Amino acid sequence: MITSRRTVFFISDGTAITAETLGHSLLTQFDHIIFDQITLPFIDNMEKASHVVKQINLEAERTGAPPIVFSTLIDPEIRRTIMGSRGRVYDLFEAFLVDLERDLSVESSQIVGRYHTVVNSNDYDVRIDAVNFALGNDDGISTKNYDRADIVLIGVSRAGKTPTCIYLGLQFGIYAANYPLTEEDLFGRYDELPDALLPFRKKLFGLTINPERLHRIRSQRRPNSRYASLAQCQSEIAAAESIFLANQIPFINITSMSVEEIAAKVLHENKLERRLL
Amino acid sequence: MITSRRTVFFISDGTAITAETLGHSLLTQFDHIIFDQITLPFIDNMEKASHVVKQINLEAERTGAPPIVFSTLIDPEIRRTIMGSRGRVYDLFEAFLVDLERDLSVESSQIVGRYHTVVNSNDYDVRIDAVNFALGNDDGISTKNYDRADIVLIGVSRAGKTPTCIYLGLQFGIYAANYPLTEEDLFGRYDELPDALLPFRKKLFGLTINPERLHRIRSQRRPNSRYASLAQCQSEIAAAESIFLANQIPFINITSMSVEEIAAKVLHENKLERRLL
Repeated sequence: MITSRRTVFFISDGTAITAETLGHSLLTQFDHIIFDQITLPFIDNMEKASHVVKQINLEAERTGAPPIVFSTLIDPEIRRTIMGSRGRVYDLFEAFLVDLERDLSVESSQIVGRYHTVVNSNDYDVRIDAVNFALGNDDGISTKNYDRADIVLIGVSRAGKTPTCIYLGLQFGIYAANYPLTEEDLFGRYDELPDALLPFRKKLFGLTINPERLHRIRSQRRPNSRYASLAQCQSEIAAAESIFLANQIPFINITSMSVEEIAAKVLHENKLERRLL
Repeated sequence: MITSRRTVFFISDGTAITAETLGHSLLTQFDHIIFDQITLPFIDNMEKASHVVKQINLEAERTGAPPIVFSTLIDPEIRRTIMGSRGRVYDLFEAFLVDLERDLSVESSQIVGRYHTVVNSNDYDVRIDAVNFALGNDDGISTKNYDRADIVLIGVSRAGKTPTCIYLGLQFGIYAANYPLTEEDLFGRYDELPDALLPFRKKLFGLTINPERLHRIRSQRRPNSRYASLAQCQSEIAAAESIFLANQIPFINITSMSVEEIAAKVLHENKLERRLL
């Protein structure tokens, strides 16, 4: 039951991705409120800051309630300007930086937009290389690079393998390949792993999903096909899980998980060593 | 100049991605300190919490300095347990939740790991569909789906187009295609756009990069090739930028930007309407 709505601003001198991340974490704790969200990135001078204050104040007037503002503003002058608005401002640096300076016995350097700046171009290279690995080893295109893979995800078509592999590359610098279990793999030889995967069994990790959810996902792609039918989804999933169990391949059910969660679980359960911190 | 090092923990009942994001934002403000980072996700019961406290205390003893702890712990009992360790704990919910409850005049629901849970499976579908769009329309494979694209990134090979398109899909639900400017496009007809792109010129956005950086990136892929040579990089980039200018295609230089930053800039500069909030 929705009881009210409130305008929320995410404001930053950089991309505003951090402001959104922390704001979303907090807001998901509040049911029953609809949040109207406005993101304002790259607020890196006083002119832009003054404009933002006007926007917040107008919204306060329009809605009759002070907007909630999540911000990551390094520059103290810009931060104070936004805090002088009619919004209720939650700023990451305001909340933590003074204490952190005390705990670390140093002063921070207050460089605007620093977080997402490529200080280390090696990190950038690792990341791009890992994403390219995911793309080049997607969907069982080839197994010839599996010796370079940190992990090989297996599962039926549309069980979340591809986005998870890409995310593992982007976020953690993990080299992740994926192999889709085809009908031949699933129903050809009872409970046996495809030959191509045998040399890599220690790198295998299974993804499974509830048949109803898979049916819905596949139906969007190919409505009313045999591929998308609930019966087909049920039998493919049963066969896949049976292969996982028979071959002692660890697996997780991703039905109610986001891509981030699947990736974090894969990392955690396999004790993979990330290349990006 | 490095003056000290400190151990940092990122702790969460969920993926710990939020804890890392906020911690990294803060830590990049401190030069001269090396941070040894330990991420502990899925700390969702008291047994795990007690184990974490021991780990933090051992590290305090080993290093002779209290570790810095960034956490996102919803459960008050688990949170208090971690805060009772010898670390200096910065918890997102501890810092903000009470004030936010007051500002929103409600109590939060305190559901562990809520943030990344798929509440809305439509969001999941949009996200995956957008990522698949990026994959299916990568590298100029085909231009036939460009009418469905929100944006078409153009630039020379290895200028950051592919990861940006994927990130735009993952993070914002934006349908992004990309088209690499080949030698034929660049040097065939002076300053003209490739015919295939003409119908979509309003969706075009250019990425460019400094020649030295491109040279390094390409050299990793194909060392000592003509493709990777500095001269080739210089002439390709000059021709690409000339095409952008001659055809009034907006573009950015991504040399010192992270993938997140490029994606946020593309979103912002093109005023694209995101499908994921």
